Amino acid sequence: MPLQEQSKGVKMLQPINNIGGKVLLYEEVAGRISRMIDQGTLRPGDRIPSIRGMSKQMQVSLNTVKEAYNLLEDRRMIEARPQSGYYVRQRKTELPAEPVVNRPALNPATVNLCDVYRMVMRDLLNPQLLQLGIAIPNPKLLPIEKLSRMLSREVRRFGVESVSYDLPPGNLRLRKQIAQRLLLSGCTLSPDQIVITSGCVEAVVLTLRALCRPGDAVAIETPVYFNFLQLIEEMGVQALEIPASPRGGISLEALDYALSRNRGKVKACIVISNFNNPLGSSVSIEDKRRLVELVERFDVPLIEDDIYGDLSYTDERPSVAKVFDKTGNVLLCSSFSKTLAPGYRVGWIAPGRFQEQIERLKMISSVATASPGQQAIAEFLANGGYERHLRSIRRVYARQSAQMRDTISREFPAGTRVSNPQGGFVLWVEMPRQINALELYRKALEHGISIAPGHIFSVDGKFTNCIRLNAAAWDDRVEAAIGTLGRLAKQLVEEFEN
Amino acid sequence: MPLQEQSKGVKMLQPINNIGGKVLLYEEVAGRISRMIDQGTLRPGDRIPSIRGMSKQMQVSLNTVKEAYNLLEDRRMIEARPQSGYYVRQRKTELPAEPVVNRPALNPATVNLCDVYRMVMRDLLNPQLLQLGIAIPNPKLLPIEKLSRMLSREVRRFGVESVSYDLPPGNLRLRKQIAQRLLLSGCTLSPDQIVITSGCVEAVVLTLRALCRPGDAVAIETPVYFNFLQLIEEMGVQALEIPASPRGGISLEALDYALSRNRGKVKACIVISNFNNPLGSSVSIEDKRRLVELVERFDVPLIEDDIYGDLSYTDERPSVAKVFDKTGNVLLCSSFSKTLAPGYRVGWIAPGRFQEQIERLKMISSVATASPGQQAIAEFLANGGYERHLRSIRRVYARQSAQMRDTISREFPAGTRVSNPQGGFVLWVEMPRQINALELYRKALEHGISIAPGHIFSVDGKFTNCIRLNAAAWDDRVEAAIGTLGRLAKQLVEEFEN
Repeated sequence: MPLQEQSKGVKMLQPINNIGGKVLLYEEVAGRISRMIDQGTLRPGDRIPSIRGMSKQMQVSLNTVKEAYNLLEDRRMIEARPQSGYYVRQRKTELPAEPVVNRPALNPATVNLCDVYRMVMRDLLNPQLLQLGIAIPNPKLLPIEKLSRMLSREVRRFGVESVSYDLPPGNLRLRKQIAQRLLLSGCTLSPDQIVITSGCVEAVVLTLRALCRPGDAVAIETPVYFNFLQLIEEMGVQALEIPASPRGGISLEALDYALSRNRGKVKACIVISNFNNPLGSSVSIEDKRRLVELVERFDVPLIEDDIYGDLSYTDERPSVAKVFDKTGNVLLCSSFSKTLAPGYRVGWIAPGRFQEQIERLKMISSVATASPGQQAIAEFLANGGYERHLRSIRRVYARQSAQMRDTISREFPAGTRVSNPQGGFVLWVEMPRQINALELYRKALEHGISIAPGHIFSVDGKFTNCIRLNAAAWDDRVEAAIGTLGRLAKQLVEEFEN
Repeated sequence: MPLQEQSKGVKMLQPINNIGGKVLLYEEVAGRISRMIDQGTLRPGDRIPSIRGMSKQMQVSLNTVKEAYNLLEDRRMIEARPQSGYYVRQRKTELPAEPVVNRPALNPATVNLCDVYRMVMRDLLNPQLLQLGIAIPNPKLLPIEKLSRMLSREVRRFGVESVSYDLPPGNLRLRKQIAQRLLLSGCTLSPDQIVITSGCVEAVVLTLRALCRPGDAVAIETPVYFNFLQLIEEMGVQALEIPASPRGGISLEALDYALSRNRGKVKACIVISNFNNPLGSSVSIEDKRRLVELVERFDVPLIEDDIYGDLSYTDERPSVAKVFDKTGNVLLCSSFSKTLAPGYRVGWIAPGRFQEQIERLKMISSVATASPGQQAIAEFLANGGYERHLRSIRRVYARQSAQMRDTISREFPAGTRVSNPQGGFVLWVEMPRQINALELYRKALEHGISIAPGHIFSVDGKFTNCIRLNAAAWDDRVEAAIGTLGRLAKQLVEEFEN
């Protein structure tokens, strides 16, 4: 048991002051234990010290350890056995492996998506369906009342400003708050280096329009958030698909090779760097540095989408690639749609050296972002306890994604793999090759369940045996739906074999 | 005096029930008298019947006539002379004529605007300047308190819906209200034929993206709202400029000729049909019909921008060209940015046969329009007295634009012409040829005044002796500014002559 040794680092266990909140002691304790499990220092079946023992070893109170153990139980990393103590959970042998890296062709391809996207989008408007196919946050985890209260107060407080244009770069108070929060991601930026947008999608739209013309190519991970492909198609731009793995994200070797083969043609590279949608992957800090240097070398601007960054399961906010940007070549995009209010449509860009261009584009394409939402979110960031809010929803999403993973591993056909994200709320499920996710999608629809078939996450309908599931909500209905999906998937395997 | 005769049409004088409001009797009376003046039936200097006399002739109450006369005084159409009665106002001989039709080249041209646009846009962020260069409504005429109250109430009432996506086509209640109001414009459309957007600019952006690819051409009036030119430039589309007059708007003859010369190349035609920005022109009902038939004949979709339509000075809401659309070829765009709340960013499109395409484009380019603003405006349209609000602001804008016209005619150099719009709040001023509006712009800036130089309203900087002014506000500061502008303009003429 190396706990004794590690507990020398007592200074790590002091509360760390963050902007707007602090990492609590019990979370720090839980984080350390979970790292030991991840690294294999503690193995499944190992008994971990009693609450009293751990309290002594770590020099923290009994209550702190108790809360830490509760958290780890929630995350299904440890379990209490009656009369016996706490144990590292046995990972079942059928626990799905993560999906493997796919190898797309390394040439740009014209995006030409079938009608699947349209079908899936139409499902969204059907309130009868259980929506597991869209990456929206759990409405129950949004601070609706507090936001509504703040919205009401702010529009009264600001009067004429709330009905007037907040012209680009947008609401100053909000930009200040975002700049402050960016310190947590490792970035030191001024409010003048931020442009408010109508959500992260508009942010990425603006960056692409600033950087690309029809006929150009964009380097993009595969699989990737399908809206980006729709957008690229609509712009008449080509997609240069770069393989990505559910663990470390985009393959830098493949990117290097692809950029050198398509020198001058690639005008931007899009990467979702933390808790990727759909893969759940995160680019390591070292790879973020390498990524920034790599695109810089090819003179290709990097569009970094960090929309899930605040939803880390470990309470440690990951850094962004933008940290390593010395020349303004990285355009960092994000929003509050996954954590506060998708419907307020408030996002932002830190566009580096493209600041003026992005401001102009924002002005000519939508004049401004709606004012009331900007004012309410600025107030929430300043006085609403955003960090506290994040801590509570991170915990829920961590638990729920573990629950959904477990259920998938129990219910889906043998050979199914599922991603193991460390943040966010989407899961990427790779089923046996003989399953066509589109057939599963159609059958699921008959059972009132909408899922996102893998086809729409790449240019030419690769990932035909994959689906993306939204793990933002977990209740009996969702659990039953996963059971249904598993049963349908097994049927498809059987049908194939007969 | 033909009043006796006209007053046979007594049924016209009954209150007309509109959606959400009614045209008041005194406004109807004022409207009839003002038409007689416009048509020359009553001439400047003519004495009009006494209040008592008119009351008898028109069979309405004394009070109604009194209010009608007040209104006409406000609009500077009549004046009361002590002890003598009411007279049609003497139009001063120096009252400016309307600007003449310009004749642009009838070939498509690549838009390549200079930095003037950027300069003018930067001015907008300077709160020290008097903003006469931007077409924003007078904040004092926006129903701020009522909207704020409704916004607060609605977000509480709708709870989770107010923070969730209102996916395309957007808020159903709002679309119902818009469909009802469209009856006033002569259109019978269902809520399913409307898509909510983030303001009218996004509406036009979406239509252009749906219709045009780089290298295509768009037929567009000249001069035209400069943002459209910026947009066309950004899209790599060419502008085919069609001459327009301050009276009847786009020249249909020129359009016909230009479309036949550029068959197959022109993919859309944009027209601001009512109270045009910047010209103030309105396309007559007969020309609207001809316009729709004309573009249909060339298989060119019509993007009709009706953003100022609700701001008619006569309380009669003009119809739109969309009325004559039998094939879904007209995409009607508008918003509530000129009448309710620019900062809420709520606009809409009735996209005809392009419905599905527009919904998809809206989804991929910004997912949805912010929900709270949609909910508040839906409530305002349903229960906020929108018609009553319009009646009151129309009256103010009518008076103010007349005041600004008068002052321009008094203060600007001889030979200056100014538009005479029947709605909206922008004036187009054509100064003597030797004046460069850009010089006037620079000099005005030194006096803390921002204006919009004519250069930015066409592809290649025509209209160099024109400016657009915002008549949305009228107070001592604005009056003094018009005086300053006139003095500076006179200096420029003198400098030129020396």
